[in-house]
Amino acid sequence: MDMNLPVGFRFSGIHCGIKAGQKKDLSLIVADRPAFGFGVFTQNLVRAACIDWNRELIPSQNLCGIVINSGNANACTGTLGRDNNQEMAGLLAHELSRNQPRVNPSNIAVLSTGVIGRPLPMERLRAGIPQAATELASDQAAFSRAAEGILTTDHATKSASRAIEIGEKKYSLAAMVKGAGMIGPNMATMLGVVVTDFPIVFSEGQRILQRAADHSFNRISVEGHTSTNDAVLLMSPSGEHQAAPEAVSKFEAALHELTLELAKRIPADGEGASHLIHIAISGAGREKDAEQIARTIALSNLVKTAISGADPNWGRIVSAAGYAGVPIEVEKIRLVLNGILLFENGQPVPFNEREVSQAIRGSFETEIELSVGSGTGRSDHWTSDLTADYVKLNAEYTT
Amino acid sequence: MDMNLPVGFRFSGIHCGIKAGQKKDLSLIVADRPAFGFGVFTQNLVRAACIDWNRELIPSQNLCGIVINSGNANACTGTLGRDNNQEMAGLLAHELSRNQPRVNPSNIAVLSTGVIGRPLPMERLRAGIPQAATELASDQAAFSRAAEGILTTDHATKSASRAIEIGEKKYSLAAMVKGAGMIGPNMATMLGVVVTDFPIVFSEGQRILQRAADHSFNRISVEGHTSTNDAVLLMSPSGEHQAAPEAVSKFEAALHELTLELAKRIPADGEGASHLIHIAISGAGREKDAEQIARTIALSNLVKTAISGADPNWGRIVSAAGYAGVPIEVEKIRLVLNGILLFENGQPVPFNEREVSQAIRGSFETEIELSVGSGTGRSDHWTSDLTADYVKLNAEYTT
Repeated sequence: MDMNLPVGFRFSGIHCGIKAGQKKDLSLIVADRPAFGFGVFTQNLVRAACIDWNRELIPSQNLCGIVINSGNANACTGTLGRDNNQEMAGLLAHELSRNQPRVNPSNIAVLSTGVIGRPLPMERLRAGIPQAATELASDQAAFSRAAEGILTTDHATKSASRAIEIGEKKYSLAAMVKGAGMIGPNMATMLGVVVTDFPIVFSEGQRILQRAADHSFNRISVEGHTSTNDAVLLMSPSGEHQAAPEAVSKFEAALHELTLELAKRIPADGEGASHLIHIAISGAGREKDAEQIARTIALSNLVKTAISGADPNWGRIVSAAGYAGVPIEVEKIRLVLNGILLFENGQPVPFNEREVSQAIRGSFETEIELSVGSGTGRSDHWTSDLTADYVKLNAEYTT
Repeated sequence: MDMNLPVGFRFSGIHCGIKAGQKKDLSLIVADRPAFGFGVFTQNLVRAACIDWNRELIPSQNLCGIVINSGNANACTGTLGRDNNQEMAGLLAHELSRNQPRVNPSNIAVLSTGVIGRPLPMERLRAGIPQAATELASDQAAFSRAAEGILTTDHATKSASRAIEIGEKKYSLAAMVKGAGMIGPNMATMLGVVVTDFPIVFSEGQRILQRAADHSFNRISVEGHTSTNDAVLLMSPSGEHQAAPEAVSKFEAALHELTLELAKRIPADGEGASHLIHIAISGAGREKDAEQIARTIALSNLVKTAISGADPNWGRIVSAAGYAGVPIEVEKIRLVLNGILLFENGQPVPFNEREVSQAIRGSFETEIELSVGSGTGRSDHWTSDLTADYVKLNAEYTT
């Protein structure tokens, strides 16, 4: 697949020895000139060292690079963890200072993902970061290596790009994400990095990224366990840009498409998942209410097991909507599963159970369309189903 | 086990044909004289017909009996469901009017549990309720039959009793509950009935029952799916009673003990459960915060799978506390699992993983003690672990 890579960025991804075997575990994303950096971060109060670090420096008008390690989350590691995180930033800053005006550690963002509560193997990083810096390149192969270096239990890299034309100018957005749903001493976290050559106005960047995350990464779940390390970063060229509203809209639309495409790949790759479940709520009083209902259904183990068992179990879906804690009009509830009407006006309608079951079994994506009243509030959510394999994968930690 | 049954109540439980096979599916609990009736009910907005019915008549100063069917929840059944529910009350009222002053349907509470969305087989109930009424008796065998008639996927009846002495008077409390965690077209719901001969002051009854439920049935979970039919009822003798504070305290203490004992049996009997998990939170700012943290940990599939896999995975527990949405003091977190210290002052402490794993594997009950700061807020919660068997049981619905 050909990627539309923005100009002005270089990438690398190597195996430096944090993970066993030969899997890549260290990635760099570097801007040719100091760039704008925006970020959204986990709401968990138990935060990895890198999250506290990034929150200090972002939004940044002088972000020079991002260093990302996988295989170790550097979370719950106390003072040592903070020192190690700072040293990682310092190591990349040192390398970048060779060819550019001096780069400070505070110009470097850090992302970590993997085991919680273990010290980072700093000797590997002290050798690895300089080596990765020598391999920085702007081509697609380098981008792919970087996308590989951020993975943990993911089955494959998750990256995508978009190109937009504004007048005679062409811009690109490219992104890589990782995440398959687990967290904890085994593995963790959703990470994402978007790079673009579109000239974002600095004061608008955080809001633009937050809106994109709200419509993508905040609408997915595997088991709803917010990680200590979740982070999405956006890098764009620095400068005093003009903001033509149509141009910004075009960029935002492309950003939303891109982040949503990648976000959906996370539950699709969810641990043990046999279905990607799309929950589309309509008819709620407010968008926020629709979101809350979608999330409640997505977190119901009974709904998730019903789908993995290809069971047209509408009672579990309807009753989950009922305890979401927001108003619904019970007598107006309407439920359509994979295009087949199961429930209308608050009452079940006759349907062929075998037909619905086969429709679930025959498709990787399950569509749940639930209308909960006559309001205009709508929301979408994507989640994975719950299988015996999920339980096995998450119960079998080597002790 | 000898039960302390209160005087003034009769019980019966029969198979009337709602369930296949010979399993009991219809129970009656009847007061010799019109009694006080109190109740707490599901917060789900999608409610069974019986819940709406009971909420109209409770608290009641003239509750004569409770009719309970299992095997059919009579939920999401519309107008027909409401009519059928009223007819059930009417059938028992008619039987009780034979020996007493006239009993109205509005003197009868109704509880249903089982399949959602199917009409009740009324011909079975029209024959069953009169038959069950002829078998009403006040002895322990009759109580046990009633406790059997309310079960769905439970492995055994769940009943217990307490006796208290106040001055020279002896009072008894006896209770039956059902619930194993599932809900939906397959099976559903937590139900509970407490009967006592202690003279509760009418105006205090609802608060007394609510407090007991808050400290027992509202502190357990299997998968957190609030049912359409959850209900707990309390019956006590009617009359203008005096309330000696010590007597009320003694009664409430016994009621709390009784309801907590029975509540814990629900997750212990949870579908596919291999562990009962006790989560004890301390050090929170407020009791409500401690409750919220306990509930968040209890609902984490990653915590639940870690316990089923005997994995001392403290990162999952600590990070679940971090996203509970209430303040915690991260640097003061202290975690003890089955008596072994794993985490202190916000950092992991060295421990023998094999020893902790064996401690989990060797005991049906897992004790998670988590202190989240220096506050005085404490709370307890009980839940079941998550096993591949849970997934299988809930995915395999016959279509």
